[in-house]
Amino acid sequence: MSTIEPRTLKGFRDYLPTAMLAREQLIDTARRVYRSYGFAPIDTPALEYLEILTGKGSDETDKQLYRFQDHGGRDVGLRFDLTVPLARFMAQHSAALGVPFKRYHIGPVWRGENTQRGRYREFMQCDFDTIGTLAPAADVETALVIHDLIQALGFSRFQIRVNNRMVLNGLLDRLGLSDRSSAVLRSLDKLAKIGRDRVAEELAQFAGANPDQIRDVLRLTELTGDNSAILRQLEPLVAGSETGQAGVARLDQLLAAAAAAGVPDNRLRLDVSIARGLDYYTGVIFETFLDDLPTLGSVCSGGRYDNLAALFTKELLPGVGASLGLDRLLAGMEELKMVASASTPATVFIAFFDPQRLVDYLRLAANLRAAGLGVELYPDPKKLGAQLKYAARRGFQTALVAGENEFAAGIVQVKDLATGHSRDVSLAAGIQPLLDALRDSPPPRVRPLP
Amino acid sequence: MSTIEPRTLKGFRDYLPTAMLAREQLIDTARRVYRSYGFAPIDTPALEYLEILTGKGSDETDKQLYRFQDHGGRDVGLRFDLTVPLARFMAQHSAALGVPFKRYHIGPVWRGENTQRGRYREFMQCDFDTIGTLAPAADVETALVIHDLIQALGFSRFQIRVNNRMVLNGLLDRLGLSDRSSAVLRSLDKLAKIGRDRVAEELAQFAGANPDQIRDVLRLTELTGDNSAILRQLEPLVAGSETGQAGVARLDQLLAAAAAAGVPDNRLRLDVSIARGLDYYTGVIFETFLDDLPTLGSVCSGGRYDNLAALFTKELLPGVGASLGLDRLLAGMEELKMVASASTPATVFIAFFDPQRLVDYLRLAANLRAAGLGVELYPDPKKLGAQLKYAARRGFQTALVAGENEFAAGIVQVKDLATGHSRDVSLAAGIQPLLDALRDSPPPRVRPLP
Repeated sequence: MSTIEPRTLKGFRDYLPTAMLAREQLIDTARRVYRSYGFAPIDTPALEYLEILTGKGSDETDKQLYRFQDHGGRDVGLRFDLTVPLARFMAQHSAALGVPFKRYHIGPVWRGENTQRGRYREFMQCDFDTIGTLAPAADVETALVIHDLIQALGFSRFQIRVNNRMVLNGLLDRLGLSDRSSAVLRSLDKLAKIGRDRVAEELAQFAGANPDQIRDVLRLTELTGDNSAILRQLEPLVAGSETGQAGVARLDQLLAAAAAAGVPDNRLRLDVSIARGLDYYTGVIFETFLDDLPTLGSVCSGGRYDNLAALFTKELLPGVGASLGLDRLLAGMEELKMVASASTPATVFIAFFDPQRLVDYLRLAANLRAAGLGVELYPDPKKLGAQLKYAARRGFQTALVAGENEFAAGIVQVKDLATGHSRDVSLAAGIQPLLDALRDSPPPRVRPLP
Repeated sequence: MSTIEPRTLKGFRDYLPTAMLAREQLIDTARRVYRSYGFAPIDTPALEYLEILTGKGSDETDKQLYRFQDHGGRDVGLRFDLTVPLARFMAQHSAALGVPFKRYHIGPVWRGENTQRGRYREFMQCDFDTIGTLAPAADVETALVIHDLIQALGFSRFQIRVNNRMVLNGLLDRLGLSDRSSAVLRSLDKLAKIGRDRVAEELAQFAGANPDQIRDVLRLTELTGDNSAILRQLEPLVAGSETGQAGVARLDQLLAAAAAAGVPDNRLRLDVSIARGLDYYTGVIFETFLDDLPTLGSVCSGGRYDNLAALFTKELLPGVGASLGLDRLLAGMEELKMVASASTPATVFIAFFDPQRLVDYLRLAANLRAAGLGVELYPDPKKLGAQLKYAARRGFQTALVAGENEFAAGIVQVKDLATGHSRDVSLAAGIQPLLDALRDSPPPRVRPLP
């Protein structure tokens, strides 16, 4: 019989254990932080009615949508983000849930993107949002969650850049550009990518800005100093614009509250050049950059929006939240060697040395597991060398070896797989001496994230 | 503007927080148990080439497949289980991974099933397998994992029923039915569902068995007594069949080893009537039933197979594993009131009482979080009654209330939301007295599974 070639679709990938252990650890950390603030998990279907997905998406997401007819002849599509499903979800369930509603949602999304840009067609999103409140406290909390999250992932050198669309709108108002704000913000958003000169060109071309206006817009992005200094420079620039002044006041409050709650000043920076292209942001906006990987782009972005679900309900649902760029962050952590090379979640390997002693190995493993250790028992009584090679390849640092002599003497050999050094530990007085010995062993190659 | 009706597709469902918290807890427990035995996580794409999915599936799964053409004109489909992707995955990566390879895989699968049978078209699978070994130790370990898993989920009254296809094949050999074993096993598998008489009819109709053969086959399912008694009755029935004798020997070894490793005798029961319809099982087979929900069906099933990936590689890949019926188990746990009614993962609610004190509430929350507590701060300084109603609805049992007087006095009120009773706790000496008070509080309505 000829076989079918085993392969994945272009733009899709398997996660092998090493990558998957890192992904699970990252997701666990995100969940722990989200939950510590009272965000609750939800999930929505991978497949939605096509009209749900195409209602709001841009032309680009519409083009990338995986769509088809199901068995019942319905037009359906695979979700391309977790925001449109959240909007549909809130419109459907907000009465039952009540607001404010704080949710996190971690799951795969699908986009038929051009893979030449290094993008995948299936990737994870990891979002949290507070829906149904306009309160500044929810903005502050969003900043705190981002901060705790990036810190919990093991980073100490990072910057959350914060801005407020109301400030930008106030400024554009003053410059006579408020009717072209979308185009201006889209161009401004590319500043880091394409540079000052090309943004100037775009402002002229797409926003119809004149040279004075272009100069003034760009000047906004060049305000310098610490957060208070920038706030002071902003105040005169928004004078006369109620929206702008309110935006500056909210930024002021946010920065002060976050600092008081423990966020170091250098980790939360006011940056008027952060615009975020998406039209639906209306208040605070966030982007997060790792100091050690400045070209990686933002690893956690979000902001406040006035109305999440206008397509699905007449109920006004304002909210604020952000999305952790899980795949991007994983790539960055790999680059920074923050990800373990082990391919096992267990820490102790037990060699199967004496075929007559299966029951003893099983008991030993069960006792160690009962004490909270992850233990892998090799299933075959193969040559010890082959078993230890297997263990080392998986990333184990410690193996337990016992044969007839050891069992008769009531001991077990604890072997350091890196050095080859062994020592005998007595089991006569129970499992505790072995647990102590394993605690002294070198840590497994799985670097636990803090 | 008219709105789009917010709705999910037939057979699909949203997970609201209460259901999702239960699902996450169940998945966490499964992961913890799998990992404690050294099973490592993997993931594969939701979408695969259609030929991968239709190669092995039955006519029924082929009919239920969600299939379409992607943007590149490729025929693709959504995975309908995690076994076919595992076969493709192992054929592709076994050289890089090495064997034995122990993996778990938890993820959604899709089947366009008839929803009238109470089935969903999107559901989670939760599988673990040991690939690339014929060792009996791997069979034993599979039984131990199932046992630890069901116990860790909070059940004490359950039965893992075990059988071995080699025993069945040996028996059918003796009865002159070995050329019709598939048809016999498929009928036998329905015994619990359709009863003795209809199985007899099916054996005549589909397996062409004569009345003597039917009587002997059914007699097999009626062996009684404890495991040892059944083993003794089996021995003469397989005498002369090498396969059958080997099967009895392996069952004997499995039962003895599992007992020695700590599985109580009444939780692992030899049951010759367990056949499992799928052709690809060739050795030990498992099904798991909850004593308190006998009609729920098996909540964890699996077994040993000779060759996982024949469609994709000429490499022989034997294995053994099982699949936790996550959705079925969740339904059962709901029926047994083992699932919490809370919709928050946090345990402490902080009311936002004094609008001037946002920073103080944020600091209090941060201190409690640093001590490992989940804390939700209400974002708006609304009326206290409305806030406490919100907290009670979410399932919080404890609220912290503090206003100008409390802050001035350096205290906080700890309020029991069930009784309405409050007591003051001093913060003068730091956070510890408050942590002690919260530890004494009634536990949140989220019942932590052991």
